[in-house]
Amino acid sequence: MDKKFRIGIDLGGTNTVFGIVDTDGNIICEDSIKTQSYPYIADFIDASIECMKPLIAQVGGIDVIAGMGIGAPNGNFNTGRLVAPPNLPWKGSTPLAQLFADRLGLPVRLTNDANAAAMGEMKLGAARGMKDFVLITLGTGVGSGIVANGQMVVGHDGLAGELGHIRVLTPLPPRLCSCGRQGCLETYCSARGIVQTAVDLLASTSQQSLLRNIPGAELSTYEIYKAARQDDEIARRTFAVTGEILGSACADFTTFCSPEAFIFFGGPMKAHEFIMPSIVKSYKENVLNIYTDMPQFLISELMDKNVAVLGAASLI
Amino acid sequence: MDKKFRIGIDLGGTNTVFGIVDTDGNIICEDSIKTQSYPYIADFIDASIECMKPLIAQVGGIDVIAGMGIGAPNGNFNTGRLVAPPNLPWKGSTPLAQLFADRLGLPVRLTNDANAAAMGEMKLGAARGMKDFVLITLGTGVGSGIVANGQMVVGHDGLAGELGHIRVLTPLPPRLCSCGRQGCLETYCSARGIVQTAVDLLASTSQQSLLRNIPGAELSTYEIYKAARQDDEIARRTFAVTGEILGSACADFTTFCSPEAFIFFGGPMKAHEFIMPSIVKSYKENVLNIYTDMPQFLISELMDKNVAVLGAASLI
Repeated sequence: MDKKFRIGIDLGGTNTVFGIVDTDGNIICEDSIKTQSYPYIADFIDASIECMKPLIAQVGGIDVIAGMGIGAPNGNFNTGRLVAPPNLPWKGSTPLAQLFADRLGLPVRLTNDANAAAMGEMKLGAARGMKDFVLITLGTGVGSGIVANGQMVVGHDGLAGELGHIRVLTPLPPRLCSCGRQGCLETYCSARGIVQTAVDLLASTSQQSLLRNIPGAELSTYEIYKAARQDDEIARRTFAVTGEILGSACADFTTFCSPEAFIFFGGPMKAHEFIMPSIVKSYKENVLNIYTDMPQFLISELMDKNVAVLGAASLI
Repeated sequence: MDKKFRIGIDLGGTNTVFGIVDTDGNIICEDSIKTQSYPYIADFIDASIECMKPLIAQVGGIDVIAGMGIGAPNGNFNTGRLVAPPNLPWKGSTPLAQLFADRLGLPVRLTNDANAAAMGEMKLGAARGMKDFVLITLGTGVGSGIVANGQMVVGHDGLAGELGHIRVLTPLPPRLCSCGRQGCLETYCSARGIVQTAVDLLASTSQQSLLRNIPGAELSTYEIYKAARQDDEIARRTFAVTGEILGSACADFTTFCSPEAFIFFGGPMKAHEFIMPSIVKSYKENVLNIYTDMPQFLISELMDKNVAVLGAASLI
C-alpha cells in the first residue's frame, strides 16, 4: 500500500501537537494533548498513542503511514533521545524515538524543535531551494536550526545549533542565563529578554510610556508591540535594541556558515516592522568586510501553520 | 594515461609553495617562489608556471596530473576568486582558479588556506574518519576550517569559516582588530595577539621576567615559549590566558556545530604543553551544560608536513 502520509509531532512545554501530513505538506488532521499532564513518560506515550489513533484511522490506517518525526526541545537527532529538557516533565535522558517506534512499528526520528522548524522552512517555507541558511526561533528561549550544504548541522553528538547560547558582546550589562552562564543571546532576545530590556529602559529614564500603565507581571512582547504601534518611544526602543543585538550576533554567525538567509520565527516577530530594520542595520555595521553579499533577512512563511509539525514530519 | 598526481599550492603571504602529491598523500616534489616579488598577478602566474614545469616533468608530464588545488587567504571556493586578501599584493577580486586553469588546461579549485589545512587533516591527519570537526589555525591571523556532516562548510558565498573574526567576551579589554572591528578572537590568539598579551602582562606588574630582556620588536611567541620552558611566570601566564580565551571561544563554537574535535595548527602551538591544558579547562568551565561529551582537543598531525599543499591537492 502506498505510504503517503507521515506523522509530525511538535512536542512543546505546554502542548504536544500530533499532525498527519501528506506528501504535498498539507496537515490533513491534527490533535493535541497537554504535555505537563504526564509526569511519567510511559503515561505520555500511552496518551499520545490514544490521541493519534483516530487521526491514523482517518487517513486509512497505519499501513499508509511512512513514519513519524518528532521535534522537541533538546531532541537529539543522532540518538533519538530527549536530553534533560528544562521545560519538560521528564528529567535525564529519554529514548523517545525508540519508545514510539516500539509502540507503532514505524520508523521514528527525533530532532530539536528549532531544527524541525528549519526542516519545515526548507521543504515548504521561506527557505525553499536554499542550501545554506539559519533559522532563529524567538520564544521562551532562543533556538536555532542551521543548514549548511543542504544538510541540517546536528554535530557529532546530535546537539548542534544552539545559537541562543552564544555569548554576545552588547552595550548592555551581561545578563544571567537560565543555563547558568552569562551574556547568552537568549538573555536579550527571548520573549523574556525583550521584556527585561523594556523594564531596564523604563527604569533608566522618567520618560512617559504606555508601558508604565501595565503591571510588571503582565508586561509581554505583545503588550510592547501594541505600545510600539501607538508610537511609544520606549516600546520602539526596546525592539530596536533587540534588533541591534540580533543583527550583531548574526554578523558573527556569518563568519561561521555565511548563510543565504537568516529566517526569524516566533511570537516576538509579530513586531517585525520594529525589529527587522534594526537587525539589518546592525548586521551591516557589524559584519566582517569580506562578506559583501548581504544575506536575506526573512520572516518565517510558516508562522500561521504548525511549522514544527510539518518540519518534524519531513524528517521521514 | 593514469592521472595519479595532483598539484597542491599553498599560497601564503611570504612564500607560495607548489607540491606534487600522489594518491597516498605523499608530496613527491615541491618548490616555491616569493609571493611578494610579483605585484602584478600576470607575473605571479608566469613565475608559478615556470616553477612548476620541472616538477611536472619529474612525475611524467601534464598528462598524469588530475588537477590542481590552491589554498590561499580569502580564497573563495564557490567562485575560484581571491577576494581582497589583506596580506597579498593583489587587491580587489582575482579569478585565480580560472587564470591557472586557462594556462594549464587542468581543473583548478581554490579554497581558503585554513579550509585547505582542514581538508589535509581530514584526508591524512588528526581528523581522519571524522565527519564533524573544527580546525583552528594560529598564525599571523586566526583562521578556521569547519567540517560538518563530512563536508567543508563554505557557505552561500564560499567565504564561511572565519572564526578568527568571531568577537569574544574576555576578561581583557577589547582590542582593535586589523579588520576594523573590536574584540575578534584573532586579536588575542594570533601570534601578534599572544605577544600583545605578554606585553600587557609585563606592563601590569613589576614581576621579574626573562621577557624583559628581549627588545619589544624581537618578542615573538617562540621567545615566550622558550621563557615558559624556563619556568618564567609571565610567559606561562601569557599562554594560559591565550588558552582560556581559545577554550571559551571553542565552548561557544560547540553551540554551532558540536564537533568531535577541535584541531589546532600553527607556530604558536609549538607551546601546546602550556596552551592546551588551559584550553581544555576553560572549555569545560564555559560550555553549555547539554554538551556532556567532551570533544577531543588535538594538535595537527601535519605540522611538520606541508598540510596546506596536501589539503589543497585533495580539493581535486
